[in-house]
Amino acid sequence: MIELAIGIDIGGTNTDIGLVNPDGKVLQRKGLKTQEYDDPKLYVRDIAEAIRDLLLENDVKTIAGVGIGAPNAHFDTGCIGADTANLRMKKEIPICEMLQRILNIPVTLSNDADAAALGEHIYGGAKLMQHFVTITLGTGVGSGIFVDGRLIHGHGCMAGELGHAIVNPLSDRLCSCGRKGCLEMYASARGICQTYREEAAKGEFPDTFKGAELTCKDVGEMAVAGDPLALKAYDTTAYWLAIGMANAASFCSPEAFFLMGGPTRAGEALLQPLRRYFAENLLYIYKDKISILLSQLQANDAALLGAAALIHLK
Amino acid sequence: MIELAIGIDIGGTNTDIGLVNPDGKVLQRKGLKTQEYDDPKLYVRDIAEAIRDLLLENDVKTIAGVGIGAPNAHFDTGCIGADTANLRMKKEIPICEMLQRILNIPVTLSNDADAAALGEHIYGGAKLMQHFVTITLGTGVGSGIFVDGRLIHGHGCMAGELGHAIVNPLSDRLCSCGRKGCLEMYASARGICQTYREEAAKGEFPDTFKGAELTCKDVGEMAVAGDPLALKAYDTTAYWLAIGMANAASFCSPEAFFLMGGPTRAGEALLQPLRRYFAENLLYIYKDKISILLSQLQANDAALLGAAALIHLK
Repeated sequence: MIELAIGIDIGGTNTDIGLVNPDGKVLQRKGLKTQEYDDPKLYVRDIAEAIRDLLLENDVKTIAGVGIGAPNAHFDTGCIGADTANLRMKKEIPICEMLQRILNIPVTLSNDADAAALGEHIYGGAKLMQHFVTITLGTGVGSGIFVDGRLIHGHGCMAGELGHAIVNPLSDRLCSCGRKGCLEMYASARGICQTYREEAAKGEFPDTFKGAELTCKDVGEMAVAGDPLALKAYDTTAYWLAIGMANAASFCSPEAFFLMGGPTRAGEALLQPLRRYFAENLLYIYKDKISILLSQLQANDAALLGAAALIHLK
Repeated sequence: MIELAIGIDIGGTNTDIGLVNPDGKVLQRKGLKTQEYDDPKLYVRDIAEAIRDLLLENDVKTIAGVGIGAPNAHFDTGCIGADTANLRMKKEIPICEMLQRILNIPVTLSNDADAAALGEHIYGGAKLMQHFVTITLGTGVGSGIFVDGRLIHGHGCMAGELGHAIVNPLSDRLCSCGRKGCLEMYASARGICQTYREEAAKGEFPDTFKGAELTCKDVGEMAVAGDPLALKAYDTTAYWLAIGMANAASFCSPEAFFLMGGPTRAGEALLQPLRRYFAENLLYIYKDKISILLSQLQANDAALLGAAALIHLK
């Protein structure tokens, strides 16, 4: 009998917890606000409670286990490392051990972006691909790199930090990692908002935003509605993302990039300039050989599904 | 019985042909000037002649075969692709088939930088490493990427083009690939000469070079001798190379980088600023975990030895 599993996607803003069936369908989900927690004990307690609720509400007696995708995750030790950018909990979190002690079922951990790549490969658009890169745009920018039919891990399982490739060495945008000019400072939700504000300050296009505090969702919705300033912000975002992707291509020669995360909801406002800048900046040997696609999993479920799949692969 | 093999390292400037024993010792070598050839037939004929001479002069009756490392090589088809940067022969060269027809022994082909990585792994400083990157500085800048115990190939065997990662998007240095700001435009022999001339034009340090035409070897020798302008040129070279390496690290989390090729003969004039800039620009999670080493094979033989090893792996 193939069992149900719990997949957890830990992001800087939200923690998504889903009950997943073997076909990759999320039967039900719960959410926590990651940023509300500075105590790992309370955080893990609330995750365990959400899992219990999911099982009770769906009348599930047994599951294969819990798979977690998280930033700065060490799948060999089951810990989220210390000083993780975008998390308020700054000490190392032995999340597998903590959750296992409460629930008494197997728990596995993987880098969130690696889990996303695995989800895309097992359930999504990369099913038949041997070489692809997933890029998750969100609070940060994560990536999973699949080459020659395998996810690459690297020394200490720390490969795939494309968000911290320096795309603009002359930038003055300070990243949460302490350096300047990282891709994350342009292609994350925060980066897109900053680009919008910088473009607004230039005064070339009128700033029509009327809310109290600008979010990336606002910029995306304005771009979709055709607002020139928001479109310009997405155009600049696309330029730096294209540089990062062209560089990634010359590293691993993928068949496709899969984009996921909130900022991709802007759709063609992002994809159209992205495809143009990518073509302009791509090394000629890869010309017309690399697709840029959106994650083909519902509602950006790749990380959650990949995390759930982990438990079956263990 | 383990047999001798021929290893060939095809560079933009020189073609090195060596008779290699199973311990990775180059027993004898011959050289051709790659740039003198625009006709593949003549080029392959002269390679075959050099091989015959090597076998005759060493009284060798049988060899395992010939392994070739070349730029823009397709190991699945045995061809050097069309329009290879740094080669005057611009049509596709079915070099394996051509050479095999003349010599009647097995011939295999691999990307030159991949061959170098393999050589470093089998005979050199990366013997015990599961994760490393080799960077060959020469007419161009090549790289071989070894992750999780394997060389990565990517779609169409075109992974590992680190020399064409854009490290400075705002640069006006036009690369042979048609784009601007590639690592190759800073860390290749040509790039280093250009940096020297640009620094000379600033007039900050006196230009003491007296020869007719500046070569990278000149800049290297002047740097080793302590010439301030040459040291400044190597400092700038180190900066851009460090950005490229820091970005590569966030991609694949290596244990070490191995540098090889002519410009590395400047030794500490390159390595000292390189280590400093690399540490400054490296994502904190890799801090103190990645070594920068010179190729530990004699006289930069990595590509030649790796190419020879190919024939045994086939």
